Parts: sequence; C-alpha cells; structure tokens
Amino acid sequence: MDYKLLDGKAVAAQIKQELTEEVSRIKAAGGKTPHLAAILVGHDGGSETYVAGKVKTCKEIGFQSTLIRYEDDVTEEELLRKVDELNRDADVDGFIVQLPLPPHISEQKVIEAVDYRKDVDGFHPVNMGRMAVGLPCFLSATPAGILELLKRYEIETKGKHCVVLGRSNIVGKPVAMMMMQKSYPGDCTVTICHSRSQNLKEMCLSADIIIAALGVPEFVKADMVKEGAVVVDVGTTRLPSSVTRSGYKLTGDVKFDEVAPKCSYITPVPGGVGPMTIISLMRNTLLAGKQLIP
Amino acid sequence: MDYKLLDGKAVAAQIKQELTEEVSRIKAAGGKTPHLAAILVGHDGGSETYVAGKVKTCKEIGFQSTLIRYEDDVTEEELLRKVDELNRDADVDGFIVQLPLPPHISEQKVIEAVDYRKDVDGFHPVNMGRMAVGLPCFLSATPAGILELLKRYEIETKGKHCVVLGRSNIVGKPVAMMMMQKSYPGDCTVTICHSRSQNLKEMCLSADIIIAALGVPEFVKADMVKEGAVVVDVGTTRLPSSVTRSGYKLTGDVKFDEVAPKCSYITPVPGGVGPMTIISLMRNTLLAGKQLIP
Repeated sequence: MDYKLLDGKAVAAQIKQELTEEVSRIKAAGGKTPHLAAILVGHDGGSETYVAGKVKTCKEIGFQSTLIRYEDDVTEEELLRKVDELNRDADVDGFIVQLPLPPHISEQKVIEAVDYRKDVDGFHPVNMGRMAVGLPCFLSATPAGILELLKRYEIETKGKHCVVLGRSNIVGKPVAMMMMQKSYPGDCTVTICHSRSQNLKEMCLSADIIIAALGVPEFVKADMVKEGAVVVDVGTTRLPSSVTRSGYKLTGDVKFDEVAPKCSYITPVPGGVGPMTIISLMRNTLLAGKQLIP
Repeated sequence: MDYKLLDGKAVAAQIKQELTEEVSRIKAAGGKTPHLAAILVGHDGGSETYVAGKVKTCKEIGFQSTLIRYEDDVTEEELLRKVDELNRDADVDGFIVQLPLPPHISEQKVIEAVDYRKDVDGFHPVNMGRMAVGLPCFLSATPAGILELLKRYEIETKGKHCVVLGRSNIVGKPVAMMMMQKSYPGDCTVTICHSRSQNLKEMCLSADIIIAALGVPEFVKADMVKEGAVVVDVGTTRLPSSVTRSGYKLTGDVKFDEVAPKCSYITPVPGGVGPMTIISLMRNTLLAGKQLIP
C-alpha cells in the first residue's frame, strides 16, 4: 500500500505560524504576552531536550518563558513551595513540571498541587475529569496533539475501531476518552489494551486506528496491523546507537519499516507525535493567557 | 449452559447488614450518625421510586436522611442556592440531586455546584478525574455497584475482554475506566461501544464480560453473546404493561430469556444492578461521614 506520513513536524510548524500571528495580534492590541514557566529537576537527557524544545518554541511564537531548574536532590517540600509560588504569580499564565521526577518526590502530589487553571499539561484530575465528561478544560497535551494531527489530515474516525495500546494517565487513558467523545475527531469504538490483555494481536488486527503508547520499542509488528490502518506511534524510547552523533536513537512502539507498507497513514518517530505535543502545550498556554478555561 | 444469577438484591441485603453493623459501632462509640440528603425535583415516577428507595435504605441502615422536594417549576437559581446551603451544612455528610432535572435547569451546572467532598453520587468532574487516575474518590454509584457485584461472585476479570455498551457520563465512561484499572475487579481489555459503533455485534461476540448501559430495551440478543459470557444489564426502561399492578414493567437492555442460557452469569432486571447502586450510595455516604476522601 502507498502509505502517507502523518507529518507532525510539518503540521506543528503550520500551527506554530498560526499561533505566532495570534500572539502578534494580541500584543498589537495591548494585550498581555502569554507566559509559560517550566520546572526542570535534574539532568535527564530526555527531559533536557523536551524542556529546551518548549523554551525555544515559546521564543519563536513570541511567548514569554521562564525556566526554573533544580538539582536531583531538591526536596518535595521545596518543589511544592515553588509550585505554590507559580500558582500565585499573576504574570505566569501556565506552567509545567517536567516528568519524570526523582523517586523521592511524589509525581501525583506535585501534579495535584498545580492550580488546575494553570495546568497547561492537562494532568490535573480536574482537567482529566472535565475532559472525560466533555467540558472545557486543558486537554492533556499529547492526546490533544494526536487528535489535532488526525484532524489536519482529515482522517475519518466516526464509528471506526480505535485500539489504544497502554493505559497511562498521561496518554493512554486520556486519548481513549477523547477518541470516544461524540465529536470530530472522535466518535470511535475504543478499545484499551495493556500488558495484561489477552488476544492483543487479534484486537490490533481489527483496528482501523492504532494508537501505540506502551513505551515498548517496536512492539507493533506487521502481522498485528490490518491493511489500510492508520497508525499513531507515541513511543519515544532512547536506544543506544553507534551511528548517531548523540549516541542514541529515538525508537517508537511501532516497527516502522515493516508496518508502514500496510498503513494508509502512519506517524514517523521522531517527527510525528512529539512536535504535536509541544504545540498543544503552546495552545493551552494561549488559552490560559486568555483565561478561557473556567 | 447452566447460568447463575448475579443476584444484586441478595448481595445488597448482605452489604446492608454489614453497613448496619458498622453504623451501630460508630454510634456506640459516640460518633456522628451519617446523614444523607436528597433533592427531588418534580414527580417523575422513576425518580420518586429511586428516592423513596434511598430514604428507606438510609432508615434501615441507621443513617439520618433528609428529603428536600421542589416542584417542576423551581428555578435553577433557587436549586443552586439549596445546593450551596447543603454544601455548607456541617451536619449533612453527603447529598444527591436526583436526575433527570426539568429542561430549564442545567444538570451539568448543578452537578458541578455540589461540593465534590459531599458528592456521594460520584458525578462531579473532580471525582471522575480522580477515579480515572486511580486516586481515592467517591466512585460513581452504579459502576461501583457493578464492580462490587462482580467481586462478591469472584468473577475473573484480569486480561478479559469487557465490552461496555453506552458512553454516558454516569455509567458507560466511568465503568469503562474502572474496568481498565490495574486492580480487582479490573485489569480488563475494555471496549466502549455506542450508537455510532460499526461491528457492534462482532465486538459483543468477542466479549468475556458485557456491561449493557444503552437504555435501549432488549438490545442485546442471543446472537450477540459468546457462550459462557458474563452479562451485566444496567438498563431500566419503564415499558407499559397490562399485567403489572403499577401499569409498567422495568425492562433491561438485554433480552434475558434468550441470552441467559448462553451465559455463565447474568444480572436480572429488576434485582440486579439497581439494588447495588443504592448500596454504593450508602457506602459513599459512610465514607463521607468518616471524611475519608481528601
């Protein structure tokens, strides 16, 4: 089959342009410059890259950004104090705490400490709940990016069978909830599979759309994918590599070379879901700045 | 097949006994009597029955209960004022606003006005979101009742395929989220089907567990059910009847007579999920009284 790439990089660039124009208009009208703050703990390679990408994108779009760094040994108390400070800082429209956090800090506690009205990552239970019942909220960034990508490529979703691999709180569960809503993209029959699923292969074979978010490199093989399926790969595992300058290679949950020929559409890794996640964060920050979420 | 009934009435009676003993102990120790309030608007037959059942069960268990009635023409403002009053009433541990409400009142607005710490129906987005991420919360009463029923009958769920029919905010979505959690009952591969689903019949045929919550009388037929499946019927449509004294007959979403012989376990209607829903509400009220939900 002649597959098409779901080119997240290109779509993100286009949305970035749209956001840049909107920010210019806001500023020209004397409005407030949207301001995103990010807290980064430690020096995890992936986290460094992601946060750097977010700060860079803010600059390109015309947002203000603030990066707050802590070493690995920051206490939970100190981190929560900073969260509280950002909650009360009227100039900061939205902020994120880059995950993962060191094991001595409870991620869930930190997520819940963020004022949900500044929770541009969409991780707070209030935003999760509002999303689940279809109310205005900050949509979890990666799932929102995936839906936007499907939308820009006009992928048909109504009544289709969407299989989500993985039940994490930040991708699997929210993307499943979003794909079942009575809207476009959405209106799918949704199946959530995970490590305990029996007949996972058969389930994938019946899928019109597969969203792979297990974090297991090259888990989805050609014999698990129906001819003509749409495949979205959320995986970004860093595997050691001798051919890249960085010494590692980002590897998705899908064995791209053998799966792609069976697909109608497929995301590449990198350049698929990743850039869309950052752009969703920017959209949420703009929403936060406009105070459009109650 | 020799099917067994999932006898909600019997299980609810057993739990009622457990709750009664616990309330006695609390009172004997000088603790506060749990207090449930219910707001009933209008005179819908179903709502009258449900609320009367809740008040009666409170009395039997030893809870205090308060019933607040309004006519159909109550304004949204007046209703919201009462909700606010109950939120602030320290003696009321939990309360419910019986749905449906008249069309001039926004149900969603009322649901969100209830303090989530007194939301013993588990409808508030905060409770939905906390449930979705697996945090302590008031579990939505009907889904919690269904899981408790599966638990008391020791139904195996891990890795099984659970098909949920219907995506309502009060049954379909929350029961799907609960059945996919890494816990027992749960750990299922979960598929949510709805009115837009293609291949709904095939999906049902692959299900080990079917939870039917569409509100379409006798929608699930024998040719949609796999031999040995577990079938839970949430439907309670009132159909006119010339043989009952009340003039109507509660009809489930499952064509019981033809489906039951294929099942390992099946709930009857009435006497299945209904009594479990009321008992879940009582458990939530007890939790509220103990202030165990943060």
